[in-house]
Amino acid sequence: MSDFKLIVKSIFRQYDVDFIDNGVAIIEELLSENHIHVIIDEKVADLHQHRMPWLDRVTSLIKIEATEQDKDINTVQKIAETLLRNGITKNDFIVVIGGGIIQDVGAFTANILKRGINWIFLPTTLLAQCDSCIGSKVGINMSNFKNQLGIFWPPTRIIVDIEFLVTLEKLEIVSGIGEILKVHLISGEDDFKNVERDFDKMISDFSVLKNYIYRSLEIKRRIVEKDEFDVDYRHILNYGHTFGHSIEAYTKNAVPHGIGVSIGMEIANYISMKKGYISEAVRKRISSVIRKNIPYEKLDYRDHERLSRILKQDKKFDGHKLSVIICRGIGNIVQEKMPIDEEFLNLIDEYAEMF
Amino acid sequence: MSDFKLIVKSIFRQYDVDFIDNGVAIIEELLSENHIHVIIDEKVADLHQHRMPWLDRVTSLIKIEATEQDKDINTVQKIAETLLRNGITKNDFIVVIGGGIIQDVGAFTANILKRGINWIFLPTTLLAQCDSCIGSKVGINMSNFKNQLGIFWPPTRIIVDIEFLVTLEKLEIVSGIGEILKVHLISGEDDFKNVERDFDKMISDFSVLKNYIYRSLEIKRRIVEKDEFDVDYRHILNYGHTFGHSIEAYTKNAVPHGIGVSIGMEIANYISMKKGYISEAVRKRISSVIRKNIPYEKLDYRDHERLSRILKQDKKFDGHKLSVIICRGIGNIVQEKMPIDEEFLNLIDEYAEMF
Repeated sequence: MSDFKLIVKSIFRQYDVDFIDNGVAIIEELLSENHIHVIIDEKVADLHQHRMPWLDRVTSLIKIEATEQDKDINTVQKIAETLLRNGITKNDFIVVIGGGIIQDVGAFTANILKRGINWIFLPTTLLAQCDSCIGSKVGINMSNFKNQLGIFWPPTRIIVDIEFLVTLEKLEIVSGIGEILKVHLISGEDDFKNVERDFDKMISDFSVLKNYIYRSLEIKRRIVEKDEFDVDYRHILNYGHTFGHSIEAYTKNAVPHGIGVSIGMEIANYISMKKGYISEAVRKRISSVIRKNIPYEKLDYRDHERLSRILKQDKKFDGHKLSVIICRGIGNIVQEKMPIDEEFLNLIDEYAEMF
Repeated sequence: MSDFKLIVKSIFRQYDVDFIDNGVAIIEELLSENHIHVIIDEKVADLHQHRMPWLDRVTSLIKIEATEQDKDINTVQKIAETLLRNGITKNDFIVVIGGGIIQDVGAFTANILKRGINWIFLPTTLLAQCDSCIGSKVGINMSNFKNQLGIFWPPTRIIVDIEFLVTLEKLEIVSGIGEILKVHLISGEDDFKNVERDFDKMISDFSVLKNYIYRSLEIKRRIVEKDEFDVDYRHILNYGHTFGHSIEAYTKNAVPHGIGVSIGMEIANYISMKKGYISEAVRKRISSVIRKNIPYEKLDYRDHERLSRILKQDKKFDGHKLSVIICRGIGNIVQEKMPIDEEFLNLIDEYAEMF
């Protein structure tokens, strides 16, 4: 029934990722014997309602906006109250349909209600399908504190239905591909050769993209199964993220996440080359793929004071040094601590100038 | 250094329960190298401040009232905001000092902050020391929904300092002993013989009581390690609780928890005898110990409508039958489903009349 299946072993439980065309139909089947409570991105509900006529028959239907403001403890409380008023029990299912923000809000609610309710996740963005849906990480905001509340809580089941990708904007696809490139670079030569060869097809052909979504989850699975609680080894998944996040913040989120990660990997690789960890040839080879995923004419992060202030707010800055994920070759991505000094900031500039 | 030590294996991590006289001194040692954030029952802070002069030097000192109103998501939010304003990091320690309510609020906060912060628990009531401190269960209220938010989250370390018991009222000791009797009955003949012999000493001599606290945790540990997430086997720890909770509710919490559990075990055993699961001799033998722990002249739960309404709100009522933990002998405590009908309610009455 499912085209592909991936099984993820979590500390909490084992769960399946099922790749199913028109996977939303699975929820309709569940409806006959279970109470279903849906938390859905209101935009997705609009765009895909023709595929989900059964939405009229669920016990709870909660539509939320996928905004940073709504990724908040107050939203979680409101949803939890609605579900309790609707008489939710331990045997019911919460079905979460949306991208990363809806995932965060839904997972947090499902975790804290009655010590954990079963929840099924249908990721609708490429970023959520190829990356965030597995690995159990959940983060939400409270007051002015961004992502400071969080838990680890995996779904009971994930259904990847690539028809959701059809209604995404091109930039959202490009953004998701940033994370696909990241894990393929972490994985090694064979996987990187594949993305080198198929990059253009990936963007234009969803049947090709689907295989890369699957492979990305397969690579990520190996890492999160070893270190689900992100104690050390899993840090390599932050490749491109430290610089990526700082660029997202520097541009006040004008740069989408996966594109920030692409730029972040480029900067990490440039620093790696300057420190003698990789040759110029290797850097250029990787760059020739990643650059296709950065749809900008030029980059500019020249305000050192502003940039260093942002970098020092990173939770991977210990007061003295910043943990950066650098590149010692394709498939050899490692963590290293570096001071945030002028030399370091100059290297970031140099890359932007060369861009 | 510690008089006794118990190691509990949790799905999340392994943690120690250290029995240390004047164990509060451990926190002072930690202070020299760590940021410490204390969440403490305000009554305990008053009564034991002479033993904790270092409270003036902690990074956060949050005193809360141990009331059902404060065991709430809003309290958790307020504490979390204070800790974030005080710059709490993943490397800091939250130290929770109090009974079950403070444990619930502290554990919930420690779990959802930054995906889990280390927390040390110093239980100050007998109920918390002999029972709730291990096993990871956490429950809090939201609006009118009692205990409907919850998680599983064990402490990083537990320090049992029996000097906290000195300032408890007699009734709080009696209440705690209810849970001690429960696990010793679950355990078997040898353990039950010990409580039969030592019951009076336990109440009057804290050095004797300390051994029973240790043994109670040892018995509970075996059960929670097998079924931390309370899927099935762990249900036997609810022995006495279904009826106990209903009596607490019936009397609007005039009956303390552990005394409710004692009455609940008596009712469960009476029903077990009437169903032919145990002989009258066995029931009487158990009763002769438990009755000492019920400081009432008479019992009266004759309003069947009210009692059955309360029992039907129990989360162990599936709409048709109630899961009750019954007794098939000392050390043979098992789960059985029973309808809440007149026959069932009459048995509860019969016990109360006979009391």
